[in-house]
Amino acid sequence: MSFAFHRLAQTGRARLGRLETPHGTVTTPLFMPVGTQGSVKGLLPKDLEEIGSQILLANTYHLLLRPGPERVRALGGLHGFAGWKGPWLTDSGGFQVMSLGHLRRIDEEGVVFQSHLNGDLVHLTPERSIAVQEALGADIIMAFDECPPYPSSRAYLEASLERTLRWLERSLRAKTRTDQALFGIAQGGTDPGLRRRSTLETIRFDLPGYAIGGLAVGEPKEEMFRMVALSTELLPEGRPRYLMGVGHPEDLVAAIGLGVDLFDCVYPTRTGRFGYALVPEGRLNLKSGRHLEEATPLDPECDCYACRTFSRAYLAHLVRAGEMLGAVLLSLHNLRYLHRLTEAARAAIGRGAYGDFALAFAERRFGKGVPPWFLEALRAGGHL
Amino acid sequence: MSFAFHRLAQTGRARLGRLETPHGTVTTPLFMPVGTQGSVKGLLPKDLEEIGSQILLANTYHLLLRPGPERVRALGGLHGFAGWKGPWLTDSGGFQVMSLGHLRRIDEEGVVFQSHLNGDLVHLTPERSIAVQEALGADIIMAFDECPPYPSSRAYLEASLERTLRWLERSLRAKTRTDQALFGIAQGGTDPGLRRRSTLETIRFDLPGYAIGGLAVGEPKEEMFRMVALSTELLPEGRPRYLMGVGHPEDLVAAIGLGVDLFDCVYPTRTGRFGYALVPEGRLNLKSGRHLEEATPLDPECDCYACRTFSRAYLAHLVRAGEMLGAVLLSLHNLRYLHRLTEAARAAIGRGAYGDFALAFAERRFGKGVPPWFLEALRAGGHL
Repeated sequence: MSFAFHRLAQTGRARLGRLETPHGTVTTPLFMPVGTQGSVKGLLPKDLEEIGSQILLANTYHLLLRPGPERVRALGGLHGFAGWKGPWLTDSGGFQVMSLGHLRRIDEEGVVFQSHLNGDLVHLTPERSIAVQEALGADIIMAFDECPPYPSSRAYLEASLERTLRWLERSLRAKTRTDQALFGIAQGGTDPGLRRRSTLETIRFDLPGYAIGGLAVGEPKEEMFRMVALSTELLPEGRPRYLMGVGHPEDLVAAIGLGVDLFDCVYPTRTGRFGYALVPEGRLNLKSGRHLEEATPLDPECDCYACRTFSRAYLAHLVRAGEMLGAVLLSLHNLRYLHRLTEAARAAIGRGAYGDFALAFAERRFGKGVPPWFLEALRAGGHL
Repeated sequence: MSFAFHRLAQTGRARLGRLETPHGTVTTPLFMPVGTQGSVKGLLPKDLEEIGSQILLANTYHLLLRPGPERVRALGGLHGFAGWKGPWLTDSGGFQVMSLGHLRRIDEEGVVFQSHLNGDLVHLTPERSIAVQEALGADIIMAFDECPPYPSSRAYLEASLERTLRWLERSLRAKTRTDQALFGIAQGGTDPGLRRRSTLETIRFDLPGYAIGGLAVGEPKEEMFRMVALSTELLPEGRPRYLMGVGHPEDLVAAIGLGVDLFDCVYPTRTGRFGYALVPEGRLNLKSGRHLEEATPLDPECDCYACRTFSRAYLAHLVRAGEMLGAVLLSLHNLRYLHRLTEAARAAIGRGAYGDFALAFAERRFGKGVPPWFLEALRAGGHL
């Protein structure tokens, strides 16, 4: 099985790493664009390659419903089907059953939900999730878990994390392919004791990688980053850590400082479709009239095709005119922004200057109002 | 003024030509993708370049309303604004006032219409159309004309074409830039006498190029191609001929045979957004379930990115899932299909075998049912 993780450098708790997968080697920390239905909305695989995307995420829930795992398998799995020949990661479907499907029942066996497409009742269990993920054929697959909503009672969180551990065991037993790495997902909400227990129980399975789940679901940033700090302290140094569903630039910088290696989020593409561009100072709203006469690019420091080719005025025109190209170009730029951010983070870790990098980032992003949670995360990561 | 047209070869009435413009030289016959609002929907200029697009069309009506001609001028005209550095053509706005705007009045002075965006009353006259087109800065601009609906009475057609001739005269007088070529537009509906009169009166202005207007608006193909045949017989050999609003593959092949050099139409991109792919046999409907398991490309002979990278099954999945990438890839493929078709037509003219090319095309497209109007056009073009 050609899956391995090597730490190349470390500064405080921030790590520069190399992750080998059957479909290529990637450098961490990195951000994974989300190709929900097997397509990163509006973007060609060749453009993703050009902007430095290394690994894509696809959603088991969506592909299970349409076009169905057997169709994807018959066409060569995600690598053959979707035109991206590099590494893929699939989630387990659990999170999206709960956020998109009409959940009908959750019990020890698994979940029953009603498809958001046609109302069909669908069963998803650890065994079924793994079978679907084996058909999809991603390089990294995720154990079937429950991501409880925020807030949840301590009793619910506890029962849920215990069940998620039993589902992890069943996920591992159900696994038949040897060319896919299965990551476990630690839960526990924002309760430090439960988060610790879930993390410690999960790493007992000695897995090739671990995800920090159940965060970025509405809790305050202070709590989220305390949980991340606690998690990366417990997780084994030699395995990659994946913070699920996180994609705001400031969150990436804080979490990388705490030793997280992998991220995914629909944020850069979704906010792009809504007319927003990520820039070092935050976000430009291209729907606003103020950009209609600006001849400058979105971000003069950016090397993406949108910034090399077009003015803010043109992009604002596209957004206001409802032109599809506006969504395409802003998605492309926003992903490139996050890729450039992780490239700069990797370089800073390599030269032992992650704290300087993170503070310089925060100064541009927040001005004089750098939020306490950000500084606390840097402190916990050993960068201040 | 760096505008010139050279005929390089001729077979029957079909011509292979070279058109020099201030922003580059193009080879005719060719098809112009339509960038209505300054963007070919969903496609990056670099991808248009890659598939062999040579010149783009933008719509004066749309850009007049949004973002406004002065904004485009301030940002360097269409060449600076929209990221396509090659040649542009703008229409005069007349056609779209009538098809999209809420027309309030048409008289000798010009037209008054209500914007489809905000209901504002807007005046468009020959002078205003030319002023807007000078601000937009295309290489080829069009005289302000009226395109009467089909059917129209002979009396209306006659009054309208006379007014269009007076508007042509005013368009020429209004023109101040010397680096734009103004084409006149012949009208006359499907009345041979009026079509002849309009064409002969228009060419008296000795313009750098001529458009055949008022066709492809609902009339039978027989009538349309009789008008095209009549027009190209009268139009001067040494000037390019542009058949406006025509983009169906079979229409291109027939009209090229009659000596038309330039075409534009939203058809390839619009039908792509609707889930259809142009292929030699006609059109594939990617919304249909029959393509969901096909591992073959849209068109095995096509060299576009969509055909090199994806199966019909994947594209059908994107279309059914409502993924933006489906629209992008089908638009790209359909434009490449028309560009490949005109490339093949040019090669056939170059080797003196246009009739063979057109018949081979028709055999795949229509099987045994080649329509009479197609053969009639080939005969009139001297290819049978």
